[in-house]
Amino acid sequence: MLVEGVHFRLEAIDPLELGRRALAISTSDIAAMGGSPTFALTSLALPPDTPLSTTDRLYRGIRDGARRFGVSVVGGNVARTQGPVTLDVTLLGAVPRDELVLRSGAQVGDLLLVTGVLGEATARRLLLEQRKGEAAAESNEDEDGGVVPEPRIALARAIASRQLAHAMIDLSDGLAGDVRHLARASGVGAVIDEENLPVSVRARRAAERLGLDFRELALNGGEDYELLIALPEDRLSEAREAAGEVPLFVVGTVVAPEHGILVERFGGARDPLPEGGWSHF
Amino acid sequence: MLVEGVHFRLEAIDPLELGRRALAISTSDIAAMGGSPTFALTSLALPPDTPLSTTDRLYRGIRDGARRFGVSVVGGNVARTQGPVTLDVTLLGAVPRDELVLRSGAQVGDLLLVTGVLGEATARRLLLEQRKGEAAAESNEDEDGGVVPEPRIALARAIASRQLAHAMIDLSDGLAGDVRHLARASGVGAVIDEENLPVSVRARRAAERLGLDFRELALNGGEDYELLIALPEDRLSEAREAAGEVPLFVVGTVVAPEHGILVERFGGARDPLPEGGWSHF
Repeated sequence: MLVEGVHFRLEAIDPLELGRRALAISTSDIAAMGGSPTFALTSLALPPDTPLSTTDRLYRGIRDGARRFGVSVVGGNVARTQGPVTLDVTLLGAVPRDELVLRSGAQVGDLLLVTGVLGEATARRLLLEQRKGEAAAESNEDEDGGVVPEPRIALARAIASRQLAHAMIDLSDGLAGDVRHLARASGVGAVIDEENLPVSVRARRAAERLGLDFRELALNGGEDYELLIALPEDRLSEAREAAGEVPLFVVGTVVAPEHGILVERFGGARDPLPEGGWSHF
Repeated sequence: MLVEGVHFRLEAIDPLELGRRALAISTSDIAAMGGSPTFALTSLALPPDTPLSTTDRLYRGIRDGARRFGVSVVGGNVARTQGPVTLDVTLLGAVPRDELVLRSGAQVGDLLLVTGVLGEATARRLLLEQRKGEAAAESNEDEDGGVVPEPRIALARAIASRQLAHAMIDLSDGLAGDVRHLARASGVGAVIDEENLPVSVRARRAAERLGLDFRELALNGGEDYELLIALPEDRLSEAREAAGEVPLFVVGTVVAPEHGILVERFGGARDPLPEGGWSHF
């Protein structure tokens, strides 16, 4: 469910992108269970003064997204609201029963992997906001910002169909938040190795420019829609083979529940992982 | 999708009833296709200051409704909003392929039936509002008002499994609005026989007290969640048998599309059916 003023601002996003984005986000969730998306239902609450062009472009974006992911939009609803534009996408998916991957299956000793660099989406957004704050509209830097995430469908299917993973989750809230979700659901603890967090040079520079610690950005930056995968160490090379050109970064390990969720600092000290993460609520 | 201030007011409805109601409304839609409800996903946008008791009772109502209709709630979402409480229920249903009834199958010559008296829900609501306006809080009259509709699941299944109907739709907007939906989808016209509109004595009295024409109430009163059924005349007695104790009232006929949507007045004059109906938007 995407709510204007909370998850997007209509001044800042083309409704076409918003529609595509909504489909991509839900698809990422299906992919993280090893599934393929099939049918979508879209509900939309609109203020009476919404321009027709907004609705038009929003539905076009939804259609675009559906086509891209092989989804049929089979139903939905439009309602009036006195409040913000609210878009709810329900997406169904299918997965062979023995290839289903839950977030609850992680086991002590598993490695924790992520499928790409972290903090990119947040760095991009923060830079964009800063730049707009400076009214530097003449900036030449790339601004389209890739607001539509690229869910890891093929990779997730490759991992799931080979039954390599004990657990998966997609990174919507940021690694710190989502590793907590996975650990809680699995009844385990986790150690995140701060030194091994994959961060792009671009995001590192962005963090510097924004006065942020890049590790902080990698841990708490949300909306990357990469996968967090828990698998036994002896399946790592198979997983890397299945992943093909997508990098798999080892970012931590699953430990016994009594350890809680820890972060291992450079030098080996372990601290409780600070709460944080990007909250949808 | 139910939006506070448009479809309900939190001052006027117990969130428990709202949850039950949401499940019932969607179930009615599934029933009108001949199906049985199976799985639900519920999304909820809440202002940050929503009391926990509201959320609690709302979810309890959803659970109640799900249990009542044999539905499993399998997913959903909670989001923050700066606007009104917004509840979106997505309900899946199942129907044997050859028992599926669409709103698009009505044929010229079909009878149009409804499964109960019309205008009840609206009469009840208007009376309640009037009474509250008069601050007659000490009134002894029944006020619970049956805000949770009783979807015609068993009847719809009986009709569908015998393949008696060409088309069905549930009456959420009111007969005038929904006969228009059915006719448009089927590419036909329709004549509604005003004299045969089934109205309870209670609703008739309510209309009188409210200074309304009871025919108007029957045509445009929404939220009755009765079924509108189009079937060939030679299946009527079978349909009545299938319906058991539920009355089937013949309220009109399907005619060629060039006639449009008409209402036949007492005496036989035919007028275009006025637009109207309770709009969800």
